[in-house]
Amino acid sequence: MVISINDPLDMHLHLRDETMLDIVAPLSAETFSGALVMPNLVPPVTTKEALLSYRERVLKAAGSSRFEPYMTLFFRSDYTPEFLESVKDEILAVKLYPAGITTNSEGGVSGFDLLELAPVLNAMSDLGIPLCVHGETGGFVMDREAEFIPIYEKLARNFPDLKIVMEHITTKDAVEALKRFENLYATITLHHLFITLDDVAGGLLQPHLFCKPIAKRPEDRMALLDAALSADSKVMFGSDSAPHPREAKEAPGCAAGVFTAPIALQALAQLFDNHGALESLQAFVSDNAKSIYGINPPEKEVVLEKSPYLVPEIYEATVVPMFAGQSLEWRVVSAG
Amino acid sequence: MVISINDPLDMHLHLRDETMLDIVAPLSAETFSGALVMPNLVPPVTTKEALLSYRERVLKAAGSSRFEPYMTLFFRSDYTPEFLESVKDEILAVKLYPAGITTNSEGGVSGFDLLELAPVLNAMSDLGIPLCVHGETGGFVMDREAEFIPIYEKLARNFPDLKIVMEHITTKDAVEALKRFENLYATITLHHLFITLDDVAGGLLQPHLFCKPIAKRPEDRMALLDAALSADSKVMFGSDSAPHPREAKEAPGCAAGVFTAPIALQALAQLFDNHGALESLQAFVSDNAKSIYGINPPEKEVVLEKSPYLVPEIYEATVVPMFAGQSLEWRVVSAG
Repeated sequence: MVISINDPLDMHLHLRDETMLDIVAPLSAETFSGALVMPNLVPPVTTKEALLSYRERVLKAAGSSRFEPYMTLFFRSDYTPEFLESVKDEILAVKLYPAGITTNSEGGVSGFDLLELAPVLNAMSDLGIPLCVHGETGGFVMDREAEFIPIYEKLARNFPDLKIVMEHITTKDAVEALKRFENLYATITLHHLFITLDDVAGGLLQPHLFCKPIAKRPEDRMALLDAALSADSKVMFGSDSAPHPREAKEAPGCAAGVFTAPIALQALAQLFDNHGALESLQAFVSDNAKSIYGINPPEKEVVLEKSPYLVPEIYEATVVPMFAGQSLEWRVVSAG
Repeated sequence: MVISINDPLDMHLHLRDETMLDIVAPLSAETFSGALVMPNLVPPVTTKEALLSYRERVLKAAGSSRFEPYMTLFFRSDYTPEFLESVKDEILAVKLYPAGITTNSEGGVSGFDLLELAPVLNAMSDLGIPLCVHGETGGFVMDREAEFIPIYEKLARNFPDLKIVMEHITTKDAVEALKRFENLYATITLHHLFITLDDVAGGLLQPHLFCKPIAKRPEDRMALLDAALSADSKVMFGSDSAPHPREAKEAPGCAAGVFTAPIALQALAQLFDNHGALESLQAFVSDNAKSIYGINPPEKEVVLEKSPYLVPEIYEATVVPMFAGQSLEWRVVSAG
């Protein structure tokens, strides 16, 4: 069996910088038409110069004219409307992190005081710049996303013309919140479609599956699967592929993040196939994002075939992917 | 400030075998008067010969005449009353593991069919041998203990004269179940009094705090604390100190277990002190166990002082303890 996916998009991607960027950018560029590139570098991307310079580094590392890095700016409540106007053609979205909630998010937002956030959010709304949000509170790890839902709702209600993307949703609660507000959208990762906390800590502890937000309960995973497999037009694929050097993952104090970019399409094809939902894959990995963000990425046809694909143990002796050393049921035949 | 604890008891202890036994047994023997020694060796302790031989090895490794290893037998539903009668003076309890639920529990019980278990449980009840249970189902990792409560209740109801110890309880549900049945008792570990899942996976991933049952929610920890600090006569200290070589803890596929035996009394003194409950410590670490099990361990007075104690990074270059390299507020002055 063979399928074609046109213009696959990864709407939540960490490409890092320097050596890691050089390793991972080509892997995304190989099979994706474009990706929304996260701005949580050290320091975060908060100026036009940093933005343009990072975009140049990404393009150079990707080494492909058929891969569009859609850039994001790290949310700051002190951005002026003039500044946002001046960068709006260089970015696809602004990404908001609660302070300290994930890798390199120390400079994020500390409270969600609408008075403080309103000037920037109103300017974004006027300029048509979507807001992407890492929606977690500082509460108990299994509750952080559910506790954040009222903040999503407050934002959606108060800024009805602002497109708000709930990033890497992991819970049934978030899937349900999507239905209540027209201007709420969501990305769903590969790993949250596959795993629950059981896979991370239910048997032996698996650091390569440790991520933020942490994988949740079986009923949460089912809700995410339902949304993805039914081609719900408000959800998009966003891998949240987050490479860390092997040493950082395989030691006490393991960093959060699952590296999935190079095996994402193969694993998604397997998942959708196993659920008899291959016809929904095009919407989930491309069409929905095009429509939500209004983008036209470079044309790319990726042909996948149902035949075994052995996932590499490691890339460039540095980054261990999800399913390392395991066999997937689908492989990429060509991408071009 | 100085306190004395008389005859401290650790009513749930993994001493392992061979090199590891030689490393950890003296550490428990130094500050504890006795310990209930778990039988999940490879193969598990299921015969009188294995029991006596393991007891000899433990005594030799402990190297102290003032430390009593209370032995346990690994539950098998095919034990005969005659066999149990023949070992009853050599054991303090029989430990029941659901199959495959934790380290070396593959040979455990697969169902909880009362018809299958009744002959052994009736014989134990007649002989006055307590039953210790690792109470987890094979369900979602955060639910396993709560899902097991009905099985505890079924056992408690059907074998009213059998003392049943819910081992290493981690949930509010288990604390509440204690109150409903006169013949239900429980051990509580050191680490479950200190940590929740947040400490394991809420920030960076901490393999040395990864254990089974997994640390639960803040409200669960509070319920355990309430029971321990109030000197609830049905709960006893059982460290579930479970040493693994450092390599097995600090690699993908990290084994479950927290090594706490050598720092348990110091950490408990700090915890009870910080909660203004030092007067309950004697009951929690000794008196309740003496009364529940009807034992008279070797006399040992442990004097602790409120002054900083730097926990070793590692013991014998092999086992990393809880609080490794950190400072505790209480130290052991003398034990003898």
